[in-house]
This record gives sequence, structure tokens and C-alpha cells, in this order.
Amino acid sequence: MVQRLTDTEIDAALKELAGWRRVEGRSAIARSFKFADFNQAFGFMARIALMAEKLDHHPEWSNVYNRVEITLTTHDAGGISARDLKLARFIDSL
Amino acid sequence: MVQRLTDTEIDAALKELAGWRRVEGRSAIARSFKFADFNQAFGFMARIALMAEKLDHHPEWSNVYNRVEITLTTHDAGGISARDLKLARFIDSL
Repeated sequence: MVQRLTDTEIDAALKELAGWRRVEGRSAIARSFKFADFNQAFGFMARIALMAEKLDHHPEWSNVYNRVEITLTTHDAGGISARDLKLARFIDSL
Repeated sequence: MVQRLTDTEIDAALKELAGWRRVEGRSAIARSFKFADFNQAFGFMARIALMAEKLDHHPEWSNVYNRVEITLTTHDAGGISARDLKLARFIDSL
């Protein structure tokens, strides 16, 4: 069982995850990305998809041409867990 | 300039595009897909992404684990065009 993080832990983590925000009405974090074109946006998604499979932790996401919206939450924990922070840090490293 | 299809043309096309529906409140068609897991869902998305680049016509889509939601519309035409039907037929062929 994955542990849900406390608000204090999440706030501390978000300080170093610039651009990520808490989602209104649910325990999740989200970030919007904009690229030059679809090729770059989907390339970015492909790299995240490979890591998501490796971590067995998957994003909720949408894509419209050069834009990608990513929401992270841990269903097993009923909220934000360390897995979400790990995936968010990987996404930011791309 | 791409031509927007008439309602009659869209209705006729949707008869052979089983599973696709018109989107409420906008001129677009959509379909939901469910797979065994994320691997299959993203593999499906990757194949569509390659074709979308080839056609230079891209879907609006979202993915949550094994589910993929696809919406097709043609911004240049201000609605549904032959390009959307072509991409929908390709998606259905996968």
C-alpha cells in the first residue's frame, strides 16, 4: 500500500517542482506544457510513457497539437504519493 | 482551405464509423477506447500519432491508464471535414 502524503509534505515538494499546481477539488497535481509542434509534444509523451511503465505509475493526460496537460495522483493511495513526485521530477528533467 | 462537411454528409459517414458519436456543443466527432492496460493504450496512441503527422491532421485526445478518448475536428474548416473521417477510419483499422 502506497502512503498518501500530508499537505505539509506536498507543499514542501511543490516548492521545488516549479510549474506544478494542486488540482482544485481532488488530491492531485497538474502541469501544462507547450511545445513547438505535435512532434515535440508527442515525443515528450513517449518518453514519459516509457518511464511510467518502468515505474508502474501512469499519468492522466491530454494532448491537443502542441499542448500537453498532465495530472498526477495515486489511485491506490487515494491522493498524492511519493510516486507522483518521482514522476513529476522525471517529467521536469526532460 | 478544407471544406466543412454538411450534417447530411456527417450522418452518412457516421453510419459506417461505428462507435463514433457527434460531440455535444461543437462540430466534432469522438470515440472512447478501452484496452487491457497502459502498454496497449499507448501503443495504439503511438500508431495514431505517426499517421497524424503523415496526414498533418492531429487528434485531441486524453488517456487514463487503459482508456483513450479521441475527439476529431478540423480547426481550419471550423468543424468536421473529410480529414476527420480519414483519420477516424484509420483509427478504426488498428
